[in-house]
Amino acid sequence: MSIEQLARDARLASVSLQSVTNEQKNEALLRIKQVLAERKDDIFKANEKDKQLAEEQVKLGKLSGSLFKRLDICNGDKFDTILSGVSDITSLPDPTKKVTMATKVDTDLSLYRITVPVGVLLTIFEARPEVVVNISCLALKSGNAVILKGGKEATFTNAMLANVIQDALASLPESNPIPKTAVQIVETREDISALLDLDRYVDMVVPRGSNSLVKYIQNNTRIPVLGHADGICSVYLDKDGDVSKATRIAVDAKTNYPAACNAAETLLVHQDLLKSDFFTQVAQALIDAQVTLKCDAASLAHLQKQLPASNKLEPSVEEDYHTEFLDHIIAVKVVADVSEAVEHINDHGSKHTDSIITENAATADYFMTRVDAAGCYWNTSTRFADGFRYGFGAEVGVSTNKTHARGPVGLEGLVIYKYRAYGNGNIAGDYGTGKKQFLHDPIAPSDYHV
Amino acid sequence: MSIEQLARDARLASVSLQSVTNEQKNEALLRIKQVLAERKDDIFKANEKDKQLAEEQVKLGKLSGSLFKRLDICNGDKFDTILSGVSDITSLPDPTKKVTMATKVDTDLSLYRITVPVGVLLTIFEARPEVVVNISCLALKSGNAVILKGGKEATFTNAMLANVIQDALASLPESNPIPKTAVQIVETREDISALLDLDRYVDMVVPRGSNSLVKYIQNNTRIPVLGHADGICSVYLDKDGDVSKATRIAVDAKTNYPAACNAAETLLVHQDLLKSDFFTQVAQALIDAQVTLKCDAASLAHLQKQLPASNKLEPSVEEDYHTEFLDHIIAVKVVADVSEAVEHINDHGSKHTDSIITENAATADYFMTRVDAAGCYWNTSTRFADGFRYGFGAEVGVSTNKTHARGPVGLEGLVIYKYRAYGNGNIAGDYGTGKKQFLHDPIAPSDYHV
Repeated sequence: MSIEQLARDARLASVSLQSVTNEQKNEALLRIKQVLAERKDDIFKANEKDKQLAEEQVKLGKLSGSLFKRLDICNGDKFDTILSGVSDITSLPDPTKKVTMATKVDTDLSLYRITVPVGVLLTIFEARPEVVVNISCLALKSGNAVILKGGKEATFTNAMLANVIQDALASLPESNPIPKTAVQIVETREDISALLDLDRYVDMVVPRGSNSLVKYIQNNTRIPVLGHADGICSVYLDKDGDVSKATRIAVDAKTNYPAACNAAETLLVHQDLLKSDFFTQVAQALIDAQVTLKCDAASLAHLQKQLPASNKLEPSVEEDYHTEFLDHIIAVKVVADVSEAVEHINDHGSKHTDSIITENAATADYFMTRVDAAGCYWNTSTRFADGFRYGFGAEVGVSTNKTHARGPVGLEGLVIYKYRAYGNGNIAGDYGTGKKQFLHDPIAPSDYHV
Repeated sequence: MSIEQLARDARLASVSLQSVTNEQKNEALLRIKQVLAERKDDIFKANEKDKQLAEEQVKLGKLSGSLFKRLDICNGDKFDTILSGVSDITSLPDPTKKVTMATKVDTDLSLYRITVPVGVLLTIFEARPEVVVNISCLALKSGNAVILKGGKEATFTNAMLANVIQDALASLPESNPIPKTAVQIVETREDISALLDLDRYVDMVVPRGSNSLVKYIQNNTRIPVLGHADGICSVYLDKDGDVSKATRIAVDAKTNYPAACNAAETLLVHQDLLKSDFFTQVAQALIDAQVTLKCDAASLAHLQKQLPASNKLEPSVEEDYHTEFLDHIIAVKVVADVSEAVEHINDHGSKHTDSIITENAATADYFMTRVDAAGCYWNTSTRFADGFRYGFGAEVGVSTNKTHARGPVGLEGLVIYKYRAYGNGNIAGDYGTGKKQFLHDPIAPSDYHV
């Protein structure tokens, strides 16, 4: 089948999905869970094949041990976690069919704005095969068709999972209109480059993976891309900060999970904190947590004096303040005040999540109002920027976009709206100066007819 | 000044705009209105210069009469309309600082989602110089900085209007932090191509103008584009339609303002309507309104038999169903049923606005659920797709995008949100299995502290 045909099928599936009920979507999700459980052996066999091939790559030094680990879905309770993830998504509220505006334009003309699925999603991800199940379920729950492309290390597992999901959809009762083409998988880079051109059929691309993957996609399509390339988060220690909060948050933000996009990469320090042992305490705690500090001249001079025995202090270069280390490394810079901190963040950050540590409410408000990031935090670790921690139940990813959806994105990020007008033969020519006038009265929810 | 510096200034202005109050924004808007009125003579002189040059172009046949007319802001009450437009925008509610989600993540950790300006807008438009004032005011009211680029025919007028707006902003009292760089203007195509590359500084592009302008921009930037290239709207006459509503709506949708993007370009006709004089009546009304009907074989055969004297009937080609005529021409096609009508629209339409004429509620629902367009109308003319008719007070444009904002876009389309977390030293490492649990309780509006 040609890629164009596959994309067209996805578009047609998305039209069918526009009219399904929440019950029908849940029926499909629970059927997927059931068939996944039934076909566990097939899935494990496919996973074994991928792991065998990957093992050779690890031996040749061509694949990292951590990537290999992420490939494995047979280990421990991993498979059960995948199944319970399906249940979790099933139990979330339906994000579609919500009326977000209702206006009586005239006595016999009602206008409603109602949430609808975006349409066709293209998701591209690396390594972890459970994303096939997770994203398929999020797409279905929000009424979207999805085309998946996984990493080549997981080819057999991804194909088997997609195959099982399609079989589950195909086995739905006839009363359920969700077609199996609601979930499709492609395997090659050429397929992706063809799909990135098909903005007629594909409405949104959701890349999950490395900076280079996301940048490649952003640079090669007119289709809106939901996601983030970089996660350069900062923690700013204000002169009015509490040293115990500062220490706890700096260490958590950097070391709780350094490979995550919401880990801190830059520590900004108010110059006054060099007059006491405030900054030294924070630095010592980071060093104790095995973090290397890449310091500007002022902070380096201070720390080399205060902590002369440490071998975790290095001079920084400008590039460090634009770098997502994803490791036990943090760039440190002394700033004159909160205003310089905000300026640094707006210039160097990736609009992901930034935190201020202060007991001064006015300073916090200054920071949180002016920092242009999806998340602006006060006395809180940047690591909270996550759909589960925000209470969304499930997350599509974290977006650093300035439009549509920003920050951790749950099901709400996969819907848009349409306007529905219910008239009685109303024509524009009847309204205007000396003619009929518009009412523009709000319609109360109890009077909705939609 | 380099374009990069100009874009950087816009970004800095947008940071200042993040913290302004509605009162400060209104103060700026009313000051703009006042200075525009004071400098009316300068503005008219600049407009005269443009008109003189344009007149020569008209004589040489290089500029159309209608474009010339749109250039003129001295004529009749045009200038007063521009001034009252500023007042209208001033009186609209502030779209920013609205809390759209509030969650108690833990007893001492509150999370708010709050609307904020998108940031820096780039708007590109043709001919009508009043767009300078309109878009500047919409941008300021929503807290955005804006960079404007108008058509070259209005160079002097656009520059003068932008200059007057900057002078008005520069004359604000010191207590008002809106800088004059909140509104800037550029003049050349080279400036635009440089700006389309500066996604670091520019957050959204709003092109208003021809199909080719919009397509050029969509194809040449990574920055999100808000707008529409085509307006291919359809009216579908169902077998259960009311002939009087069908006639009124078909004529209004086609002829009320044929150059508008919400004018109908395609008329779809249920085959059963050829068994009575239903379709003939609608066609006759269109012909009486000077509309040429480009008909498929079935409709042409029918009409040539019913209306043999008409010279407004022509055979159609496939391309006609993809064409935005913007004239007294409509493409006509007979379909088997509502399902074929929906399929035709989803394949040929531009996701703008489509209308069904029927007395059958189930058929209407089928159509309005499955047609993938920003506006799905029942017994209503497509011409209602307009920000003023929707009651938005002012409109940025009409979007056929599938993300962010769709349909007529008012001030709400110029805002996004950020998450603000208010903690007490909270760290992610404290939560999890066997540790602290998240509350995820909603916060009541009376308990908001934001």
